[in-house]
Amino acid sequence: MTIEKKPSAEAMQAWATRCLRKQGASGDVATAMAEHLVAGDLLGFRTHGLLRLRYNLQALQRGHTKGHGAPEVVKRRAAIELWDAQLLSGLYVLPRAVERAMQMARDYGTGTLVVRRAQHVAALAVYLEQATDAGMLIQMMCSTPAQQVVAPFGAKSACFSPNPFAIGVPTLQEPVLLDMSLSMTAAGKVRTALAEERQLPYPALITAAGDYTCDPATFVADPPSVLASLGGEQLGYKGTGLNLFSEFWTLGLSDYGREDAAAEDGDANTVWLQVVDPTAISEPGAFAQQASQLVTAVKKAEPIDPKKPVRVPGAGALATRQQQLAEGISYSAATWRQLQWCAEFCDEPLP
Amino acid sequence: MTIEKKPSAEAMQAWATRCLRKQGASGDVATAMAEHLVAGDLLGFRTHGLLRLRYNLQALQRGHTKGHGAPEVVKRRAAIELWDAQLLSGLYVLPRAVERAMQMARDYGTGTLVVRRAQHVAALAVYLEQATDAGMLIQMMCSTPAQQVVAPFGAKSACFSPNPFAIGVPTLQEPVLLDMSLSMTAAGKVRTALAEERQLPYPALITAAGDYTCDPATFVADPPSVLASLGGEQLGYKGTGLNLFSEFWTLGLSDYGREDAAAEDGDANTVWLQVVDPTAISEPGAFAQQASQLVTAVKKAEPIDPKKPVRVPGAGALATRQQQLAEGISYSAATWRQLQWCAEFCDEPLP
Repeated sequence: MTIEKKPSAEAMQAWATRCLRKQGASGDVATAMAEHLVAGDLLGFRTHGLLRLRYNLQALQRGHTKGHGAPEVVKRRAAIELWDAQLLSGLYVLPRAVERAMQMARDYGTGTLVVRRAQHVAALAVYLEQATDAGMLIQMMCSTPAQQVVAPFGAKSACFSPNPFAIGVPTLQEPVLLDMSLSMTAAGKVRTALAEERQLPYPALITAAGDYTCDPATFVADPPSVLASLGGEQLGYKGTGLNLFSEFWTLGLSDYGREDAAAEDGDANTVWLQVVDPTAISEPGAFAQQASQLVTAVKKAEPIDPKKPVRVPGAGALATRQQQLAEGISYSAATWRQLQWCAEFCDEPLP
Repeated sequence: MTIEKKPSAEAMQAWATRCLRKQGASGDVATAMAEHLVAGDLLGFRTHGLLRLRYNLQALQRGHTKGHGAPEVVKRRAAIELWDAQLLSGLYVLPRAVERAMQMARDYGTGTLVVRRAQHVAALAVYLEQATDAGMLIQMMCSTPAQQVVAPFGAKSACFSPNPFAIGVPTLQEPVLLDMSLSMTAAGKVRTALAEERQLPYPALITAAGDYTCDPATFVADPPSVLASLGGEQLGYKGTGLNLFSEFWTLGLSDYGREDAAAEDGDANTVWLQVVDPTAISEPGAFAQQASQLVTAVKKAEPIDPKKPVRVPGAGALATRQQQLAEGISYSAATWRQLQWCAEFCDEPLP
C-alpha cells in the first residue's frame, strides 16, 4: 500500500539533508548520506532507502555514527589501501573510497580499498554506477564483524554476518548492477514475512533443532533460528565458501575481526571494493562490446515461461528509477510514517 | 572400486611426464602438466587428475594443445596483465601466471592476470597453494568461450559455460582451499550418475520443456537438458549473477568472447586470477591470525548432526593428499584402464 503523494527525489534528498544536518552531520556528510539513501529508494531497494533515515538520525544523535571527520588511511601499497572509517557513515565514506579506487585503477589497472568501521552502508547497488559511468568494472563485498546470523553448511548455529555481494559492469547500453546476499534470504525479508503473517517461499532458516524451515516465527523464537547459507540443505557448502570469500577478503584483510569488534561497534561494517579499468588490458570500448554480447546472450536465452523474459541483474531497478525520477518516489504508508517521525524529531516538515 | 596397487605420486608423475614428452611436449611443459594432473589426484579431484591424461595426450598429438612456446603478453598496466596462452596447456601456463601475479602483489599490493586460450586447466585447486604458501590470498575464475551448457535463471536454454570458482587462503595452520562450480552440479557428475544409472540427488537440470529434473538421462536426450545456475528453481538469479561475474571478469576483460572463439578453440579456457599480499595493508602475520579465527568460528559452529562436524573447504582434500602421499595413490579400475591405454599409446609401461 503506497501513499498517494509522490514527492520528487530532489525534494526528499534536500529534506533528508536538512534532517541529518540537525543531528550534527556536516554539510558534506549529510549531503552524501541523503543522496545515497534516496538512491536506494529510486532503485527500488526500499528496505535500504529513507526507511533507514530514522536509524541514521538516532545513530548520529547518540554518537554511534560520526557526523564529522575523515577516514584514516591505515596502511597502503600502490594499488591497495586500508581505511578506518572512524565510525563515519558508509553512505559518506564509500563514494570517496570508490573514487580513490578508480584513481588507482587508472594508474595501476586495478584499485582496491578495504574499509573497516563504516556505519550504515545501505544498498551496495547505489555505489556501483560511479565506476560503471567511467567505463570501469566494480566488485564489492560487505560484512559486519559484530553480527553472526548466518550458519555455515551443516551447522545449526551462526558464524557469519549477512554478507551482501555486488558487481557493476559497463555495457554499450545501461550497466549491469547486481546486489545480492550470500545467504538464502535476508533478515529483513524474514521480518517482513513475519509482519505479514506468511511463510517464506522456501526453507531459508535453520531452527535450533537443526531443521530447515519456511516458518519466520522461528526467527524470533528462543532459541532463534538462523539464516542458511546460499545453496541451502543440498548445496549450502557453496554458499559457505562464498561467505568465507567475503569474510576473509573483508574482516581478514582489514585486520579487524570478530575478536576485535567492540560491543559498541554494533552494525559497523567492513567493505572490500575493487575497481578494474578494462582499458589497462584491452582497447577502449572493447570491454563494453564484449559485456553487451554477454548481456544479449542472457536476454536471448529461451524463457521457461514465455511471458517472463530472462532478466539481466539491475534492469528492473534501473526501470524503477527512471519511472520514479519522472513521476516521483512511491513510499509505502509504513515508510511514510517513519519519515513523519523523522520530520517531527528534526522539526523539518516533509515535502 | 579401486585397484590394489597404489603407485607413488612421484612414480606416476615421472611416468606421465614421459608420456607427454612422447606426444611432443617440451621438458618444461610435460613436467608442469604431469605435476598438476597428479596434484589433482592427490587432492581427490579424480575427475581432474590423470584420468584426463588421455585427453591431453591426444590433444598434443593432434596439435589442439601446443607442446612448445610461451604465452604472449597482450597488454599490461602495472598491476594487471592480459596473456594469450597460444593454446598451451593451462597446466603449464597457470603456475607461471600465478608466479607473475605474486610478483605484482609484492610490488603493488595486488596482482591480476587474465589468461585467454589456455587448454586444459584441470582443477583450479591445484594452483592455489603456490600463493598461500607465500602467505598470500588468491582468487580464480575460469570460463570456456566455446561452451554453453548452463542456463541463466528463468531460461531453459544455456548461455554460460561451466564456470569454476576458487579461493586459496593462508591461515596459521593449513590453507583454506575452495574450488566449486557456479552451477547446481557439474557435467561430469551428471555423466557419472548416468553411467551408474541413478538419479541426481536434487533437481540440477532443466529440460527442453522447462522442467527442473533429477533425471540425468535428459542430459543426453534430443533436445538435451541444460545445467541450472546455483540457487536452482528458487534462487537461480543469484547463481546467474555469479556466472555473469565470472564471465564479465574472464571473457569480457580478455576481449575474447563467444563471438571471437573459433570452433577449433574447443575446450580452451579463459582464466581470471588475482593474488593479494595482505602485508600491503596489515602487519606480517596479522592476516593469518584473522583467517584462523574465521576458520575456528566455522569449526565451532554447532553441527546439525553431532556425528558430522562442520567442515572447512579444502580440509578433506588436504587429508586425502596426506594419506596418498604416505600410502600411494588410489586409482579406480576405470581410471586405471584409461592409464593403461595411455601406456600403450606412448609405449611407456605404467609404474
